[in-house]
Amino acid sequence: MRAVDLIRKKRDAGEHSRDEINFLISGYTRGEIPDYQMSAWLMATWIRGLSRAEIAALTEAMLHSGEVFSFPEIAGQKVDKHSTGGVGDKTSLILAPIVAGGGLHVPMISGRGLGHTGGTLDKLEAIPGFNTALTLAEFRRVLGECGMALIGQTAEIAPADKKIYALRDVTSTVENVGLICASIMSKKLAEGIDALVLDVKTGSGAFMQKEEDSVRLAELMVETALRMGKKAVALITDMDQPLGRFAGHSHEVIESLEVLKGRGASDLRDLSIELSAWMFYLGERTQSVDQGRLLAQKLIASGEALEKFRKGIELQGGDARAVDDYAILPQAKNRREVKSTMSGFVASTNCMEFGVALAMLGGGREKKEDKIDPGVGLEFHKRIGDPVASGETLVTICYNSDAKLAEAQQRIAGSFQIAARQPSAKKLIRRLVGA
Amino acid sequence: MRAVDLIRKKRDAGEHSRDEINFLISGYTRGEIPDYQMSAWLMATWIRGLSRAEIAALTEAMLHSGEVFSFPEIAGQKVDKHSTGGVGDKTSLILAPIVAGGGLHVPMISGRGLGHTGGTLDKLEAIPGFNTALTLAEFRRVLGECGMALIGQTAEIAPADKKIYALRDVTSTVENVGLICASIMSKKLAEGIDALVLDVKTGSGAFMQKEEDSVRLAELMVETALRMGKKAVALITDMDQPLGRFAGHSHEVIESLEVLKGRGASDLRDLSIELSAWMFYLGERTQSVDQGRLLAQKLIASGEALEKFRKGIELQGGDARAVDDYAILPQAKNRREVKSTMSGFVASTNCMEFGVALAMLGGGREKKEDKIDPGVGLEFHKRIGDPVASGETLVTICYNSDAKLAEAQQRIAGSFQIAARQPSAKKLIRRLVGA
Repeated sequence: MRAVDLIRKKRDAGEHSRDEINFLISGYTRGEIPDYQMSAWLMATWIRGLSRAEIAALTEAMLHSGEVFSFPEIAGQKVDKHSTGGVGDKTSLILAPIVAGGGLHVPMISGRGLGHTGGTLDKLEAIPGFNTALTLAEFRRVLGECGMALIGQTAEIAPADKKIYALRDVTSTVENVGLICASIMSKKLAEGIDALVLDVKTGSGAFMQKEEDSVRLAELMVETALRMGKKAVALITDMDQPLGRFAGHSHEVIESLEVLKGRGASDLRDLSIELSAWMFYLGERTQSVDQGRLLAQKLIASGEALEKFRKGIELQGGDARAVDDYAILPQAKNRREVKSTMSGFVASTNCMEFGVALAMLGGGREKKEDKIDPGVGLEFHKRIGDPVASGETLVTICYNSDAKLAEAQQRIAGSFQIAARQPSAKKLIRRLVGA
Repeated sequence: MRAVDLIRKKRDAGEHSRDEINFLISGYTRGEIPDYQMSAWLMATWIRGLSRAEIAALTEAMLHSGEVFSFPEIAGQKVDKHSTGGVGDKTSLILAPIVAGGGLHVPMISGRGLGHTGGTLDKLEAIPGFNTALTLAEFRRVLGECGMALIGQTAEIAPADKKIYALRDVTSTVENVGLICASIMSKKLAEGIDALVLDVKTGSGAFMQKEEDSVRLAELMVETALRMGKKAVALITDMDQPLGRFAGHSHEVIESLEVLKGRGASDLRDLSIELSAWMFYLGERTQSVDQGRLLAQKLIASGEALEKFRKGIELQGGDARAVDDYAILPQAKNRREVKSTMSGFVASTNCMEFGVALAMLGGGREKKEDKIDPGVGLEFHKRIGDPVASGETLVTICYNSDAKLAEAQQRIAGSFQIAARQPSAKKLIRRLVGA
């Protein structure tokens, strides 16, 4: 087998066998196939596409390029959730303690924020001392003791994906559902889970802005999981506006704690409960999703989920006093209000702009090596459909440096569309895939 | 400007500006754009295609990546011919002396054979002592003194093309008319010529086997030449069978000398005269192609063309006794006849197979670093349409080593189709493009 022939095959829209995919991925990971051949193959693949069998083979090849965890010493089901990312999406911080509180195990490998999206690891690190770089032995111990453990991707997990992703990034071959699916699934399946709930975002703050693209990605991911013997379901959920009332790292930790205390924004609470319910059902903890929902609500009401989060913070070295005393978390010094210049109703938002503005203020990364300011944040006072009067505050910006404040403010103001008529409400959960 | 954005643009079937093409080519040549980005762009380009304006910009960028010759000290027009290559195609050895004999100048930069095709440089080097690696000063002197000079591509000519071609070779991005056109034209236009006659082969022994593909490439090359202020015309010519009666390096030098002596195979003579006639006409030596044809015939009949070749050989260090004494040229020791097992008419040949068989016997290169045995050759006794009896010789193989003789013999025998009915004759010159 020769790489040049496989490149030609994909260039001519052919379908690769499992062996051919393995040859390419293992050869590239070992450094036997050079970057320039892999990038030509990636471009051919981007344009010609991958069949479902090819996506499954690619996922499996990348998965087996590294360590695949297993936890035989932990009885019962291991479950996880993956979100495709958006603005204010902090459900992992809420559902992990709920699901662990319900008796399942959540071995969660999370990512960092890039561009307009936030990352679970960065949010957790707003809690002073919280260590997301556990060794595998520590990860295993925390998971066993607490039912949940949250770490970042290590060099041992799917190294092929890491190497290929870095190449895709610089060769404009990122946005392809087949490649995205294989990249996500190879990392998630390395967690040694039995079931996976996918939260695929759609709308102006999502990577996939069109609902049909989100559905297609969701279908591919669910099918790939099933092909590899895992239970899976995907929820297509709204990202036409931020999830919850806050974006920014400390702000999102606080909002998550509020939901775990039975308060917080209703959309965030509803989605967290819905995702938890599906995790309970797929993880065979409840007989139905309805029962899962009731269980999640009960674990919030009883305070068990909150206590689980507190224990998780302690076990991962964080300052658990933050659960009760939000002043422990970094806070930005200054505030600036973005006000409406019109009266009417919020018709829509260009949600991605909020994430970009937040990153600009230091509350996100523009490049991988950027440092995050966890105190910076945005508070959203108005949701789509809300009435708004001229001069009323739309967003409060919490910031430290005013270097890019004016530009951020302008982006935020410009991303609200105010209309005379109230728009019809959009559903938070648009569709279920694979259920 | 960023390479990653230009890759994305071509991926999405966009059209590049001249500046964008320049940025890519000059950045890649200087080593600022890495191989893996260029190969992704090449694959996107292979699949999405290039517009005529893009091809012209690419040609110009590659041309100006290196030295562009000019010969202000030489009065009159400089003209050249380029062939896309085939089996037995030795017209350069015939037309260069004819056209130089007629008073024009032919500064010819030629290639080497690879795969099933022969190369002009390799053929000339069958003449003992012939030096195709002249310095620029020597090239200039020989051209001025003799009216013709033949060298190989140097490191100074279109280095961008050299670097890009090496990458295309290993990333399956060779066979694209736009990229082929720019690669050929950037090298030919570096010769400092005023006019170019293109011989685009079509048929079973050509790179472009379908006539419409050959026509498309011809149109692109002619248009590119015109855009860059050069006169150009293309002849689409037959390569469904070898050109002339011989293939192999010494054999082709001898056959070329025979044509210059007023003998030789009629198809080879006709095409050499036709190409020379167009060179005379475009080079403004004659008022018409008809006059060019007469002039070419006259220069053969008078022996002036032959004397020009003799002088060219002397000036480039070759043993000019070969002109009169073919025994000076290397000859293979052994002969083997390939005979027909059927009676009927030669209906068609798989002409590429002859080139492959020749290369196998040492008379061509399978890899760039292979050494050629110039004495090895094939003599074709039958042309398409000829009657053939069972047991009659189709091809005589002249060989030294019998390592791959059986396989070569089988390939040659297998590439003749013998039919009961005589096929209708095919024209040698199929079409004219740009005239």
